[in-house]
Amino acid sequence: MHLQTIRVHLGQRGYPIKVGSGVIASVGQELSGLSGTSVVAVITVEGIRRLYGTAVEGSIASSGIRPVVIEVPDREGAKTIQTYAEVMGELLAARAGKDALIVSLGGGCVGDLAGFVAATYMRGVRLVHLPTTLLAQVDSSIGGKAALNLPGGKNSIGAFWQPCLVLSDVDVLKTLPQREVRCGLAELIKYGAIMDIRLFEFIEREKGRLNALEREATLRAISAAARLKAKLVSVDEREAKGLRTLLNFGHTVGHAIEAAMEYRGYSHGEAISVGMVAETRLARLLGLCSDDEAERLERIIESYGLPKRLEGVSKEAIVDLMWHDKKVEGGRLKFALPNGLGRGIVVADPPTGTVAKALEGVVGD
Amino acid sequence: MHLQTIRVHLGQRGYPIKVGSGVIASVGQELSGLSGTSVVAVITVEGIRRLYGTAVEGSIASSGIRPVVIEVPDREGAKTIQTYAEVMGELLAARAGKDALIVSLGGGCVGDLAGFVAATYMRGVRLVHLPTTLLAQVDSSIGGKAALNLPGGKNSIGAFWQPCLVLSDVDVLKTLPQREVRCGLAELIKYGAIMDIRLFEFIEREKGRLNALEREATLRAISAAARLKAKLVSVDEREAKGLRTLLNFGHTVGHAIEAAMEYRGYSHGEAISVGMVAETRLARLLGLCSDDEAERLERIIESYGLPKRLEGVSKEAIVDLMWHDKKVEGGRLKFALPNGLGRGIVVADPPTGTVAKALEGVVGD
Repeated sequence: MHLQTIRVHLGQRGYPIKVGSGVIASVGQELSGLSGTSVVAVITVEGIRRLYGTAVEGSIASSGIRPVVIEVPDREGAKTIQTYAEVMGELLAARAGKDALIVSLGGGCVGDLAGFVAATYMRGVRLVHLPTTLLAQVDSSIGGKAALNLPGGKNSIGAFWQPCLVLSDVDVLKTLPQREVRCGLAELIKYGAIMDIRLFEFIEREKGRLNALEREATLRAISAAARLKAKLVSVDEREAKGLRTLLNFGHTVGHAIEAAMEYRGYSHGEAISVGMVAETRLARLLGLCSDDEAERLERIIESYGLPKRLEGVSKEAIVDLMWHDKKVEGGRLKFALPNGLGRGIVVADPPTGTVAKALEGVVGD
Repeated sequence: MHLQTIRVHLGQRGYPIKVGSGVIASVGQELSGLSGTSVVAVITVEGIRRLYGTAVEGSIASSGIRPVVIEVPDREGAKTIQTYAEVMGELLAARAGKDALIVSLGGGCVGDLAGFVAATYMRGVRLVHLPTTLLAQVDSSIGGKAALNLPGGKNSIGAFWQPCLVLSDVDVLKTLPQREVRCGLAELIKYGAIMDIRLFEFIEREKGRLNALEREATLRAISAAARLKAKLVSVDEREAKGLRTLLNFGHTVGHAIEAAMEYRGYSHGEAISVGMVAETRLARLLGLCSDDEAERLERIIESYGLPKRLEGVSKEAIVDLMWHDKKVEGGRLKFALPNGLGRGIVVADPPTGTVAKALEGVVGD
């Protein structure tokens, strides 16, 4: 069994991220180090439970505690206040106390819900993430962001609550739909473009092996991304210093695209792919990167079957939605931009005309 | 204007508690130091708004921001998930962003709700408490405990979220029903008995002036209690070191009494008064305090018109409910007991027979 261990350094709140092949079946063994737990609750969705429930529940049970399994609706359905209230009620009914342990088994939405549950049940209980999508493995399972949606407000409810362990099994990605794999690959490209030229070049070079989820290559890419995220979270846990903000590359435009599409029809990875193209054009207009670098970014996105442009949404709608986000974020429109490939910089309030120009030919009819 | 400033020392999360007379009308001035806020939301109940809304809202408006006022149901009705969801929706509708400021104007329940709202809106926004009950001024507004109830689980949902300012106005206590004043006095007696013999003696001596809410005496008692709470919170924010646990004197039995009464008919202050009598008897049985000290505690409780015993609930029911709490708390039944008056000690798992004996004549028919 291959296993890479990466550490998030946050003093008492620090934790290991273990990336490997076949690790999901050893979760019980991993949990045995977390003593003093009387109730273990696995939060998951039906489809994932069908695939991995036996292995995960069996492994936990063999460590001495039969887990309570709480099935929640798929995708954003997991992130409603209603689902949250039901899960909290089930924990109470299971007589879970302050020593309970929440295990999230699923993708980003399940992780967001489970994180918020762990953050707020009895003012905070322990949390372990078993992310089952590439996106969750490279990004959302690390860093403690937990969230629910409000009608009209994605992630408007939330908390920072760090897990005590993240266990990423590359083997579970085999059952992931191709579109979801691409969604994770978009985030991997983001890490490379904004923070690590060697990762970027690896993704460029290993297209065939990464698209096929070949074990060694996938494990290496996930570990590299997890290491980058762990580093940023370790120095800027609550996104207060602007460092963690680097990971928003592609997301300022990408979030506006998702909102414009009302979170339907377009995946997060697709939205941030278009966002990365637009924002790299902005970087080029601001003199932060060259034509060659911008083209190289577009080429890698295209080579992974990810979209470079979005039709049917006007440039003006995207600009309006970015301004709305700007208000929520506290009054400044921030972009994390490539400052040359492999390095990033956060730019606040670039000229409106330049932003509009960057969007030309990327969004719009 | 008399004003005492007490500080909670928690590094960047530290804050002042200002106790004074007439301070509620200067809230706008106090907030002007909290820059960069675009939306101020006052969470309150109808009755309190009728009394103090004009002063508070006018003062905030005069500082430059017209507040959004969100009225919520009274008492425990404020602490439901439904109320919480509605308040979050109203904040979103008011386009409150990450720079929003939540002002809680009310008693402990409003403060618990507002604290949880502040802890979780956009992963955390700023919070100011304007406590309007004696109980909230001496206890619940300080220390960052926020909570909601689940059906069958009081405070089962919650977070630790420190305010950036607590502003306690002794003048607003004049409009408090006598029974609620007594409820706060019970907590004051607790502080004295478990932490500060001088405060205990002051409460013994100044019965007339405290019952009449005479300004100087009340201000002195509130400041003393706030200082004690601030001290414990400063060293044990998340109740992890057992120091903050001292404030549970009277509460292990008290919570069981409240649960047995299904949170009706008996106030929190009345429940912990009976709880303090029972737990002081337990302390005496364990050799931690003398007969004289136990009698003195019962005398002060009686002299403030607070109950020393509870009829109609069996001793066995109380013991069962304490065991249920014990499970939730992680397996140990802890009591904060007077170790001589004015000093406290936390005792875990005292002999069951001794606990039962301590309850004899305090609860039961």
